[in-house]
Amino acid sequence: MCSNLQKAMIDLIEVFHSYSGKEGDKYKLSKEELKTLLQNELSGLMAESKDPAVIMTDLDENQDGEVDFQEFVVLVAAVVVACHTFFEDLDKGNVTPCSRS
Amino acid sequence: MCSNLQKAMIDLIEVFHSYSGKEGDKYKLSKEELKTLLQNELSGLMAESKDPAVIMTDLDENQDGEVDFQEFVVLVAAVVVACHTFFEDLDKGNVTPCSRS
Repeated sequence: MCSNLQKAMIDLIEVFHSYSGKEGDKYKLSKEELKTLLQNELSGLMAESKDPAVIMTDLDENQDGEVDFQEFVVLVAAVVVACHTFFEDLDKGNVTPCSRS
Repeated sequence: MCSNLQKAMIDLIEVFHSYSGKEGDKYKLSKEELKTLLQNELSGLMAESKDPAVIMTDLDENQDGEVDFQEFVVLVAAVVVACHTFFEDLDKGNVTPCSRS
């Protein structure tokens, strides 16, 4: 039986492949596939103003014009650490939640 | 509503906190908490022979004797990339599955 951590890791792999498998190399995200993933999966967490082409360049460490799974995990790690830091600061009272008034 | 990727990231945060909150600093894994996490969550994926104290030293980048969330994510990233690479090689026929005979 899978542990919760193993399930979360399997989910990361499945999310990646649900986009990388659409066109071209099924193990890599093309620019278009990355754009769709960002819109569907990280809307609200990534500044909408950030151009996917810029994000692609940031992630594409081996500069092959695509994002492989290892490069994708770097993005996920950055976002999840940023989220955790935000909630940790909120919990410690270091951040005042934006008021809705 | 959360996307699948957001759910997976929340799961990572929840797994971390289900162990880090047991004793001491609730935002960090003590050696004992890390050992329990490894046994419960990554058994079969991490060489049982590897001493948790060695893993702790590997992860504890800021050398405060504990593993914070960012250091934990480095472990998760390494394991999930290794798993993905294994299954990618299997799928491409670069690896022959170990026979059960």
